[in-house]
Amino acid sequence: MPKDLNDNLYTTRHAQLAVALQTSELDVLALNPGKSLTYLTGLHFHLSERPVLVLFVPHTPPIIVLPELEALKVQSLNYPVQVFPYGEDPMTWTEAFRQATKAAKINEKRIGVEPRCMRVLELRYLESSAPRAQILSGEQILVSLRVKKDSAELAAMQEAVGIAQRALKSTLPLIKVGMSERQLASELTLQLLRHGSEPEIPFSPIVASGPNSANPHVTPSDRPLSPGDLLVIDWGATVNGYVSDLTRTFAIGEPDAELARIAQVVAEANTAAREAANPGVPASKVDRAAREVIERAGYGKFFTHRTGHGLGLEGHEEPYIRADNDQSLEKGMTFTIEPGIYLPDRGGVRIEDDFVITSGGGESLSDLPRQLKVIE
Amino acid sequence: MPKDLNDNLYTTRHAQLAVALQTSELDVLALNPGKSLTYLTGLHFHLSERPVLVLFVPHTPPIIVLPELEALKVQSLNYPVQVFPYGEDPMTWTEAFRQATKAAKINEKRIGVEPRCMRVLELRYLESSAPRAQILSGEQILVSLRVKKDSAELAAMQEAVGIAQRALKSTLPLIKVGMSERQLASELTLQLLRHGSEPEIPFSPIVASGPNSANPHVTPSDRPLSPGDLLVIDWGATVNGYVSDLTRTFAIGEPDAELARIAQVVAEANTAAREAANPGVPASKVDRAAREVIERAGYGKFFTHRTGHGLGLEGHEEPYIRADNDQSLEKGMTFTIEPGIYLPDRGGVRIEDDFVITSGGGESLSDLPRQLKVIE
Repeated sequence: MPKDLNDNLYTTRHAQLAVALQTSELDVLALNPGKSLTYLTGLHFHLSERPVLVLFVPHTPPIIVLPELEALKVQSLNYPVQVFPYGEDPMTWTEAFRQATKAAKINEKRIGVEPRCMRVLELRYLESSAPRAQILSGEQILVSLRVKKDSAELAAMQEAVGIAQRALKSTLPLIKVGMSERQLASELTLQLLRHGSEPEIPFSPIVASGPNSANPHVTPSDRPLSPGDLLVIDWGATVNGYVSDLTRTFAIGEPDAELARIAQVVAEANTAAREAANPGVPASKVDRAAREVIERAGYGKFFTHRTGHGLGLEGHEEPYIRADNDQSLEKGMTFTIEPGIYLPDRGGVRIEDDFVITSGGGESLSDLPRQLKVIE
Repeated sequence: MPKDLNDNLYTTRHAQLAVALQTSELDVLALNPGKSLTYLTGLHFHLSERPVLVLFVPHTPPIIVLPELEALKVQSLNYPVQVFPYGEDPMTWTEAFRQATKAAKINEKRIGVEPRCMRVLELRYLESSAPRAQILSGEQILVSLRVKKDSAELAAMQEAVGIAQRALKSTLPLIKVGMSERQLASELTLQLLRHGSEPEIPFSPIVASGPNSANPHVTPSDRPLSPGDLLVIDWGATVNGYVSDLTRTFAIGEPDAELARIAQVVAEANTAAREAANPGVPASKVDRAAREVIERAGYGKFFTHRTGHGLGLEGHEEPYIRADNDQSLEKGMTFTIEPGIYLPDRGGVRIEDDFVITSGGGESLSDLPRQLKVIE
């Protein structure tokens, strides 16, 4: 994106935030490094032992407390900011926070923070430098800004899906009996980078074989792939900070009849959920569509998680595709559809696509085959 | 490591923690997912919108609150735990936390948390389920347990250094004028994985060329490498969760005389710091040794950061090699030595080694050449 468009982007987002704050119970937003900070400023920081905090006060340039050695990052921004840098000695950090909160005039204000991102480290500095402020959750304001993606965001996500799909296609010919889950995960990671993912992939690929595939969130192990295994691969790529998150399930040689059956049921549940996902439909209805297929087949109690989660700068964000979420799906919302069946000690199947709601309906960004593929 | 050794490892660490708690102002430790939790339990979780908390009460099996879909992870542990799983509906999470804190009997206790790791998400659940507890920093207890590495930890770190060094050697022949910083960073990441790093590398490589190299913490850009550039590469690998963190500086074609001069000064500062690092020596003395060389050469104000930081399961941990840290270095402590000189708008040099204090002195785990290498 050209630099002038970019600058416009962030000042536009600051203005949208100011409007959102005015209609909320909050006066100010305080963010530490994370995806929301990147969304609002374009800045990237690693979380470290050095606190970084940005205060967003409506109609005021963002106020930034950060280590001196990060100060160059802020100089290259093409919109105004107020910077309060601190040196290497932690004894001086409190003073930088005090000056920043004083400049922001927030001591009597209601400050929104992100509970899922802000650490106790930054919270304590904020509390001690603005002791009379109320610190509340600002999560919903950030969700309201971030949940509907614009065309540039969608283009990045489509590219992240394309890279992930090409990386898997390049990895499949390497899969063979005896290879460990961990080796396969490394190969897939390598292909993600080779096909153009940013180095910070959204998560380390999950490769789960045989009984391990019955655990939805397992870490790849040294277990060798073995004949009769189901093989669940859950992976994604990053483009401009936006992520993809896909899952496909394979069989190592012919699977037994019931494992083949659950693969078929999950594919049907995935299709049902994709067909149910349309503008104006509550998220719960998409979950229901997938769950009904699996329940009718008699495997309801083995579908142990929600049907999906929102996707964007984060791998898990709103909207959550869950039985109890009646939030209405709207144009530009992006989320996963990932029903699964997990038979303890035997194996599991999950089929996950990345989906966007459009004005006329919805479409899957991913199009890899969903039927169980047997790897001989 | 064989499974039985592993089990012994964690129960031993729980016993060490119980002893450390007894001599502290704290009664209990509460950890969310992160390196300290992995150190004490062997468990890995991704930080997500679902809170995970483990309560360590002396002489009691760890008490774990976690999502049901993560429960299988805990079943494979070979030491006892008390598990309080919760389902998909966030309305039920509070009750799981209430039951867990009740089982831990911590409502009147002093609870230690990690400010750099615990999020406001978990903190609020802890506060609301144990409203009369005092929540304090448990950081120093965890530092005391983790700061001196045992032989298995050191072997992992040595291997992480070896992988990083081999990855750089495989990448160097690919470097040429016109290649972008970002391309070079991707190639290096790929080589890290190919040479055996775990997929979760400690940080995305920093590749900073020309004027960008004057910014110690910059992100790789699309800037093409150009004749006359200094090129700073800062990268690392992960083995069994333990990381390496190295930096070397190169020149793209002959650099101007002053840039060559600062490269020489930084190499001398690195040597002086390595020679100063011995058991019983305060960390500040190592910083002083490096800083004196740079000050004597007239570049003191361009060495804008501390000389190093501890290294282990985290990329930045204690001991910090800083002018104001009089902590005594002891056998088994591991840290970086990374002096640098940064000339704004022109270029920078940093030379970073990973170092361990031994009984007789100290040694560098890394041994790549430290003199400025010109890439033609």
